[in-house]
Amino acid sequence: MHILITGADGMIGRKLVARLVDRGELCGRKIEKLTLTDVSAPRQPEKFSGRVDRLGADIGDPATAIRAVAGRPDVIFHLAAIVSGEAELDFEKGTHVNLDASRALLEAVRKCGDGYRPRFVFTSSIAVFGAPFPEAILDDFHLTPLTSYGTQKAVIELLLADYTRRGLVDGVGIRLPTISVRPGRPNKAASGFFSSIIREPLNGEDAVLPVEDSVMHWHASPRSAVGFLIHAAALPSEQVGSRVNLTMPGVCCTVAEQIAALRRIAGDKVAARIRRAPDPLIGRIVAGWPRRFDPRRALALGFEAETSFDEIIRVHIEDELNGKIAI
Amino acid sequence: MHILITGADGMIGRKLVARLVDRGELCGRKIEKLTLTDVSAPRQPEKFSGRVDRLGADIGDPATAIRAVAGRPDVIFHLAAIVSGEAELDFEKGTHVNLDASRALLEAVRKCGDGYRPRFVFTSSIAVFGAPFPEAILDDFHLTPLTSYGTQKAVIELLLADYTRRGLVDGVGIRLPTISVRPGRPNKAASGFFSSIIREPLNGEDAVLPVEDSVMHWHASPRSAVGFLIHAAALPSEQVGSRVNLTMPGVCCTVAEQIAALRRIAGDKVAARIRRAPDPLIGRIVAGWPRRFDPRRALALGFEAETSFDEIIRVHIEDELNGKIAI
Repeated sequence: MHILITGADGMIGRKLVARLVDRGELCGRKIEKLTLTDVSAPRQPEKFSGRVDRLGADIGDPATAIRAVAGRPDVIFHLAAIVSGEAELDFEKGTHVNLDASRALLEAVRKCGDGYRPRFVFTSSIAVFGAPFPEAILDDFHLTPLTSYGTQKAVIELLLADYTRRGLVDGVGIRLPTISVRPGRPNKAASGFFSSIIREPLNGEDAVLPVEDSVMHWHASPRSAVGFLIHAAALPSEQVGSRVNLTMPGVCCTVAEQIAALRRIAGDKVAARIRRAPDPLIGRIVAGWPRRFDPRRALALGFEAETSFDEIIRVHIEDELNGKIAI
Repeated sequence: MHILITGADGMIGRKLVARLVDRGELCGRKIEKLTLTDVSAPRQPEKFSGRVDRLGADIGDPATAIRAVAGRPDVIFHLAAIVSGEAELDFEKGTHVNLDASRALLEAVRKCGDGYRPRFVFTSSIAVFGAPFPEAILDDFHLTPLTSYGTQKAVIELLLADYTRRGLVDGVGIRLPTISVRPGRPNKAASGFFSSIIREPLNGEDAVLPVEDSVMHWHASPRSAVGFLIHAAALPSEQVGSRVNLTMPGVCCTVAEQIAALRRIAGDKVAARIRRAPDPLIGRIVAGWPRRFDPRRALALGFEAETSFDEIIRVHIEDELNGKIAI
């Protein structure tokens, strides 16, 4: 089993590499080789006995994309992306990475032209959906993204489905919920506050909440995201069917419910570290985002997420804080 | 008023040019200039007193796209496309024209960068939808095209909406029904038989029907298609709203109903010129196509089509046969 991961040095990428190394197998086959790409050469994974190719380059350059698939990886995890906030501010950069680099990778596979047809797991996003929404969004709700990020993800969903239909790749697109609680420092995603209002207080720091407490959203932990990716890699194509893009399960809750969960788990003092400072731009972006899904297909296909925001916080404390909270 | 038409030498393009010349105005403003592009330089329109720039070139070449919009046309009708059957057989050609050339044109407008924001009317297609379908397809049904043509059109719909949202163009995408009765010789569209079973018999020739009589489909005349384009050009943006891609009205009928209409209008002898010769490939492609829509938004916005297939046949006899039938 040879696995290619783009964006391997990102938050999800690193966790995916660590999980794969830990498992040692994927789809019941021993992992013998990892090809890891990112804008800078990704770090060497620890404790991995197989071969590792590390490629620090822009896969939006067709020659680099061709090089990335030259070793005919059996499974491709295409995670490389510019996040929503940055893709909105820098249209050309977002287009280059989210749209053109993804297309370059699909094209690199197509151009092999020798029957090579890897499982291609693409991380899409719930940002492919745009308001107005029904109470719960079903799998067949139409795609009307309200950001350039969501548009770029939706375009690649369409191409992934067509390349799969033509037998050029064996695609599965997974629409990730907002990943909460993201470890590390804030990134440029407009959704960053959903994590920081939990992460910073647990770390003994203040956090800024730029939206109303009533804002409702759809969450899953980084651990679940990695679980989705690994589950997607192993799904039989005939179970996926022709509609290869799937909304992942998650936890629907309001900001108030997030804060209540934080208070239950870490106490009033920690929850008091959240400072309200409304930001109209973030408020406007978030208002166009989906809030609640009915992800029947993904659930039927065996994808699993947390079932409460309390559980999401506990996962964060276990995975990122060694079980400890700064009270 | 300066108007750019891509694919100006195609069937719809020529009719649009003739109608615009005949009207002399668009959106209440005198038409002073036409820029017409196609793979070969489009013909000089007859009886037009304004300026005409004719450009025989590939707008998939970014430099050509930039040249096409250099004169800052007020309205762009982007009709250039590779039809469904050909785009399915020649993936690279379909991608180049339907996807990359459309994108090159959007990019050419964006790169003007001086506030230039033309009305951009894009001819999409009902092929953006794919089976399984509900009884009648509403405006918010999801896009799951089952052809590369439909995929390419759906991708441009998404980009058109995003470029419009960002204020880079003022887009309206119109999803054309199958255009019946197409004049002239058959093209490579898999839907060609819907026209040829009417056109050839009216011309005294035999026609081949490659599908079952029970096949149901969604039609509008070339005259209606041109009407949609002109109506789309003049729609106030605030009426269109953020969902800029609209399913056009049309006539839903079965092949049997098409033939019955032909018999009513032209008699048994003409209708007897249809020969049944099932073609499994065409049958399979057509089975994935949508059949009936509930195009509420377009109707509310004032788009109009025929109301029966009889009327579609009469329009063909008036517009293409000088009112005469070869009995």
